[in-house]
Amino acid sequence: MLEQSLLLTDLYELAMLEAYAAHGMAGTASFELFVRKLPPTRGFLMAAGLEQLVGFLETMRFMDEEIGWLRASGMFSPGFLDGLAALRFTGDVDAMPEGTVFFGDEPILRVTAPLPEAQLIETRLINLMHFQTVIASKAARMVLAAPGRQLVDFGLRRAHGAEAGLLAARASYLAGFSATATVLAHRDFGIPVSGTMAHSFIQAHDDEATAFERFARVRPKALTLLIDTYDTERAAAIVARLAPRLAAEGIHVTAVRLDSGDLAAHARRVRAILDAAGQNGIRIFASGGLDEGVLQRLVIDGAPIDGFGVGTSLTTSADAPALDCAYKLQEYAGRPRRKKSEGKATWPGRKQVYRRYAADGTIAGDVIALAGELMDGEALLQPAMRAGRRVAGLPTLEQARACAATALTRLPDVLRRLGPGAVPVAISQGIRDLVARMDLAAQPDSVP
Amino acid sequence: MLEQSLLLTDLYELAMLEAYAAHGMAGTASFELFVRKLPPTRGFLMAAGLEQLVGFLETMRFMDEEIGWLRASGMFSPGFLDGLAALRFTGDVDAMPEGTVFFGDEPILRVTAPLPEAQLIETRLINLMHFQTVIASKAARMVLAAPGRQLVDFGLRRAHGAEAGLLAARASYLAGFSATATVLAHRDFGIPVSGTMAHSFIQAHDDEATAFERFARVRPKALTLLIDTYDTERAAAIVARLAPRLAAEGIHVTAVRLDSGDLAAHARRVRAILDAAGQNGIRIFASGGLDEGVLQRLVIDGAPIDGFGVGTSLTTSADAPALDCAYKLQEYAGRPRRKKSEGKATWPGRKQVYRRYAADGTIAGDVIALAGELMDGEALLQPAMRAGRRVAGLPTLEQARACAATALTRLPDVLRRLGPGAVPVAISQGIRDLVARMDLAAQPDSVP
Repeated sequence: MLEQSLLLTDLYELAMLEAYAAHGMAGTASFELFVRKLPPTRGFLMAAGLEQLVGFLETMRFMDEEIGWLRASGMFSPGFLDGLAALRFTGDVDAMPEGTVFFGDEPILRVTAPLPEAQLIETRLINLMHFQTVIASKAARMVLAAPGRQLVDFGLRRAHGAEAGLLAARASYLAGFSATATVLAHRDFGIPVSGTMAHSFIQAHDDEATAFERFARVRPKALTLLIDTYDTERAAAIVARLAPRLAAEGIHVTAVRLDSGDLAAHARRVRAILDAAGQNGIRIFASGGLDEGVLQRLVIDGAPIDGFGVGTSLTTSADAPALDCAYKLQEYAGRPRRKKSEGKATWPGRKQVYRRYAADGTIAGDVIALAGELMDGEALLQPAMRAGRRVAGLPTLEQARACAATALTRLPDVLRRLGPGAVPVAISQGIRDLVARMDLAAQPDSVP
Repeated sequence: MLEQSLLLTDLYELAMLEAYAAHGMAGTASFELFVRKLPPTRGFLMAAGLEQLVGFLETMRFMDEEIGWLRASGMFSPGFLDGLAALRFTGDVDAMPEGTVFFGDEPILRVTAPLPEAQLIETRLINLMHFQTVIASKAARMVLAAPGRQLVDFGLRRAHGAEAGLLAARASYLAGFSATATVLAHRDFGIPVSGTMAHSFIQAHDDEATAFERFARVRPKALTLLIDTYDTERAAAIVARLAPRLAAEGIHVTAVRLDSGDLAAHARRVRAILDAAGQNGIRIFASGGLDEGVLQRLVIDGAPIDGFGVGTSLTTSADAPALDCAYKLQEYAGRPRRKKSEGKATWPGRKQVYRRYAADGTIAGDVIALAGELMDGEALLQPAMRAGRRVAGLPTLEQARACAATALTRLPDVLRRLGPGAVPVAISQGIRDLVARMDLAAQPDSVP
């Protein structure tokens, strides 16, 4: 499978592995994954993707045909390729549990493994962790913007490929969405699936009323009718007349869906039309170009909309489709390591993040410290794998979703309102001392 | 496989299929895929993804275990599910060849098939065509921004999942990139693969010179050394001293890579250091936060950079990660259909796009016309599938890449410079007459 192949990696990972092998460099390495700086439109991020990463690491191996192809490519020495067949991930992973809220520079995951293993997994590790973290972080904003409203992922079609569509459903559910339209996400993750109808269904019929009736008979239990194909209010009137007739047959119109125009204005008029016909029970569901800003305005304005289908802006995280994340070597063979590139210098050593809470339960601030440093607060990085196997009790998707819900309640108010603001993140004295010692030890004249 | 499952779809597609089946609606439908309006930062788009779509349509079918799972889910009637086993795609596809440049409202693909087939494929069809079109359109801008420079896709890690990473390599190569770092894209698509080294490789060694030498011995043919881990110019001096020694062993340093700081300034200083040491043959390769705007400035400023590795901005199309595209029913059972939703009304009927060129060979303008309408100009939609099978002679990736290269030379100058501007796109009189006839025929009082 595409998503499990170890050839889904950057060429340089294999090139480095060959060099490590040639020089017997198989000491223990610690790499950490972190986001350097949050996008301007994000006050917090939410960790996600660990479950898929652990699944990948537990089963990863080079297939015989992959090694055969590498051999035929002539890009690597035969001796090096011989060694790949036995390569497995045997290391440890510590990570923030999925659904944890985090901030810039904080390690969200640490891999401790023999250098070649920790190196090889870099590309796919970032690919898996980055994407779901991007989506969970975006979805969490929508959850905060529309409290108590049903939010459904409609975004498979414009997600970036198959895996993105499937995992966006997972990440958004984890962050608090109610359901997805993606059938496979229901099968693979148990996420509630829901769906309405497309304009093409209406258009394929000669009139809207017939289309509604026909659809009703195949969806008698969870029936949502799309009413904006020609004229939203006229269609609402059709639904108002049709609903009692269907009810007599035991078919209940659950909701109508609006997908275009001024959603608040249409929702008010449609609500009035339905209520005047005694159809107070029919809910109004809206979709079309929604993002957390639009959701927030609709909710604040009191638009009578009960649920939202969110597509493109969710599954592409349209305003921030990528994070400035990195997976960096922090320790090798017992010695801390530090990259000093301009604007991209890293904090060395194996680290932990400690979180402190205010009296009202909201996050007061975090401290990034060395893993061995004594600190108050909740340690956010928790064991996820030991010696290549997942630890017992890794959270289920439902547990991660509960963790995410709790995490959102503990955000400072300004972040819950999606306003600008930042939680203070401090660097411990232990890290600062380590950096000072490393700078002192650096040989300024080491050019040979 | 995830990317071939027909369960990777929206629930409503299956719900509509059940309703179509219940009412014997299997007439011929024509759907068209188009982008309503270009993103503000795009003057043109480039069609891509057809090859993957055709592959999907040729082989698509419900697996027995998928039907079994649908049955167990209780979401559909058993009779309907029985019919799914035999479902295949038997229709026609006409499409702009991959690499074709196009503009807003133009159909880039038309499916003509029995309604259930044309409906079912909607979600994955958009998912496949949208993504590669997004990426090819972004990559084409980079190709125009850095003419004659080597451009390499470095973006797998931050692409949205496995398929996005793999297909971004394909779409960017199609648009004119030289290579990718993704090993699997080399295997699956024959795209040249290239790679350098990561900072972690340098950091894992006690000094840079040792790291360079060790890497050199495993990459004697295409050796690029990363020089910004600690101090770019100091590392360039190390390379300048090391290169003659390696050359004596038959190992040639092909390039150095810069990945941080002011790339133009570093490139000038590094060029001077290398040239002063007689190493004029070592090329300079740059990466880190590049997009077409940065590329354009570096090239215009004459920065001595020979090639670029582009990651995140390419594989997420960061400034425009999604297009406002739609797949809409334009004709069913011989009758044109039209969606009239506010701001989302469609042009009805089966259409064709005709392109006219100025005397200098650049695009003068397009006309969107009915498929049967007589028009001057090049007809852009070409047969891709007939009766469920691909037509003979569908372009290879290399042919599509050549088509893209030609298309970029035929863009008006302002678009080649990535400036604002638009190619005129007209709607034919035939379409306008059809809309008028449909509006006239519409029953204003059809509420039952």
